[in-house]
Amino acid sequence: MEINQQRLRSDIESNAEFGAVPTEEGRGRTVLTGSEADRRAREFLCERLRDAGLTISIDGVGNIVGRWTAESADPGAAPVATGSHLDSVPEGGIFDGPLGVYAGLESVRTMQDAGIEPARPIEVVCFTEEEGQRFDGGLIGSAVAAGDMSLDEALAIEDADGVPLGDALADIGYRGEGRVDAGAWDAWIELHIEQSERLVTENAAAGVVTSIVGLSRCQVEITGEADHAGSTLMRDRADALTAASEFVLDVETVTTERCDASETAVATVGKLDVSPNAPNVIPGTVSLTLDVRDVEYDSIDHIIDEARERLGAIEDERPVRTSIERPWDRSPIEMSARCRDALHAAGERANLRTLDLHSGAAHDTMHVANVTDAALLFAPSHDGISHNPLEWTDWDDCADATRVLAGALAELAEA
Amino acid sequence: MEINQQRLRSDIESNAEFGAVPTEEGRGRTVLTGSEADRRAREFLCERLRDAGLTISIDGVGNIVGRWTAESADPGAAPVATGSHLDSVPEGGIFDGPLGVYAGLESVRTMQDAGIEPARPIEVVCFTEEEGQRFDGGLIGSAVAAGDMSLDEALAIEDADGVPLGDALADIGYRGEGRVDAGAWDAWIELHIEQSERLVTENAAAGVVTSIVGLSRCQVEITGEADHAGSTLMRDRADALTAASEFVLDVETVTTERCDASETAVATVGKLDVSPNAPNVIPGTVSLTLDVRDVEYDSIDHIIDEARERLGAIEDERPVRTSIERPWDRSPIEMSARCRDALHAAGERANLRTLDLHSGAAHDTMHVANVTDAALLFAPSHDGISHNPLEWTDWDDCADATRVLAGALAELAEA
Repeated sequence: MEINQQRLRSDIESNAEFGAVPTEEGRGRTVLTGSEADRRAREFLCERLRDAGLTISIDGVGNIVGRWTAESADPGAAPVATGSHLDSVPEGGIFDGPLGVYAGLESVRTMQDAGIEPARPIEVVCFTEEEGQRFDGGLIGSAVAAGDMSLDEALAIEDADGVPLGDALADIGYRGEGRVDAGAWDAWIELHIEQSERLVTENAAAGVVTSIVGLSRCQVEITGEADHAGSTLMRDRADALTAASEFVLDVETVTTERCDASETAVATVGKLDVSPNAPNVIPGTVSLTLDVRDVEYDSIDHIIDEARERLGAIEDERPVRTSIERPWDRSPIEMSARCRDALHAAGERANLRTLDLHSGAAHDTMHVANVTDAALLFAPSHDGISHNPLEWTDWDDCADATRVLAGALAELAEA
Repeated sequence: MEINQQRLRSDIESNAEFGAVPTEEGRGRTVLTGSEADRRAREFLCERLRDAGLTISIDGVGNIVGRWTAESADPGAAPVATGSHLDSVPEGGIFDGPLGVYAGLESVRTMQDAGIEPARPIEVVCFTEEEGQRFDGGLIGSAVAAGDMSLDEALAIEDADGVPLGDALADIGYRGEGRVDAGAWDAWIELHIEQSERLVTENAAAGVVTSIVGLSRCQVEITGEADHAGSTLMRDRADALTAASEFVLDVETVTTERCDASETAVATVGKLDVSPNAPNVIPGTVSLTLDVRDVEYDSIDHIIDEARERLGAIEDERPVRTSIERPWDRSPIEMSARCRDALHAAGERANLRTLDLHSGAAHDTMHVANVTDAALLFAPSHDGISHNPLEWTDWDDCADATRVLAGALAELAEA
């Protein structure tokens, strides 16, 4: 099977126009769920699915499914599914998500062009709100499809302005009917960029994920006292930001130490908001998020326990009050051996080297893997950069990874 | 002379309604220059000035002057002036600024009630954009009045959305004509809350400021690389926030050490913005402000030099780039002996204890003192809290400080 690299590239580049942001280097986009950019990206995808003869359905949480039932296929057989997401972080890259969606479509078109005769229908899927940038938590569409979250619960999630997800989807015309049921799929494979440098370093064409890290997200509040920056002596201050700075460094230290035991352990303070955030006012409160991940669940517990302890020490040493909440938490999850084997075999057939590795990032596949055989395939990322306009995967590498994906999907859909 | 405490309180409480913010404790307001709250606060002030028979003028930068020319006064004599500002920081208190404006007006009303016959006109002044919250820098109205900044330069200062101050003032109908000339005043006294606890601790009624601290404001940028929080190993990160946290703590350490030599030295990182500020993205850039003050100019230089050095060390130790700019800088300034004597004498006449102290906060008086005899009087602040809804001065203390102000103004206006 020969991938049409130009067709794949053209789709991804067209999609990159929606929410495009001006950048000095690289190519960035901001596609928040329910935005005009999201609407246009979805519209373009539906057009391209239709062009390839797929039947489109949109479910209650806005998940888009394009279904190809070949003449050879039993329309009643459990389908093989593939896909990813089209939303992005603010000023994110153009491959994170879209590569998997359009590589799925390209796989179908490639099978069609090659006269492949699958026994099962093949579905190309775009999940809603993977990144969790506008609607907290992320992986929302796949959580609903896997039954990990009810449709009503998902639609009621509110953005920072109190707008529910259901309304945001209705606003752009993508709140459909029913619910995609990932449990009805015979198998699932998602292609995604690696967002790390292992494939480039090892000069491999694609990475077959063995397991996806567990993830905990904590919310930390530090409260001091907002006060005048000029008239409050150093010894009289209750500065929430100096306390928060100590915590940020503590988290870094604790996690770096943990890497001796498990080198995949990571922890990040990615969002930090100071209040009132004025040059001449001592910070009164700081809110920050703590994101902790590892393939070993013990590491996550260990890091959060240590962080909690350090926060207690800061509270003892400085005149501030602190709180830490751990609103959610996902265990590490193993990928299906059957799907992994299909990916390695497809790599071999295409003369492309595939590598086993773990995924440090959460992906929609985490949910899907709870209800059916699922796998995750990585394409190489330049310098491992992601969530950034400098995120990049060469077009040749996109095509090679898609070749592996298409081969595996074809094999899985054979019987 | 007997201050009408109820009248003063009623004015300050009425003013507190403009931009009032809901708070659990205390009483807060947000009055940014050119906002609807600012317009209403100005309108109410003009009403109250008129009620007391003062003649109002508004200059090109929106400074409001109410002039009382008693029958006894020579209209051509250089006036004695008093006042402060009505704008606030976001969620600031109700006394910072308004006390000085309405105590000035109350002083005039008290002299009128007491049949005082001043030889000079007395002017009650409200300066524009003292806090510098919407239009950067602050002390803008007084800078123009003192000739430290040209009217054109001031009007061209833009807010974060690119709106010039001139337009913002015109929008609320407070861009007037000409320029208040502080150099034409015979003397100036500003009453302000202390924003520190010395008067409360010493149980004094009012503080006579000896000198106002010098102040430097720096802008610091730290640039790492925004990257995926899950798939970037700890050792591969270029996290701008961990670097910034180290800097925030370095500033605290350096300044606390400097306090051994000069206990009035203070430095504050009050504003810190993370980008892209998302829970699952490693911070790519952090911008922060560094505010450094002391009565000794050497301290300011010392702290900024040390901060610069630490920033260099951070750049050496972490994969980040840094920059520090010092866009402005004000020297410490001495208050006029003549005006200070008048304040101490007024305190004695009223049987109120006055105390000499320094001001850690910048005030409009800094500019006025460049062109005429100027003084700054402090009223006690509960717990020294300011720029915060918990900022508080007892109404009795407001009245006592106003009594000292009125006595000094009456003495200065005698000849």
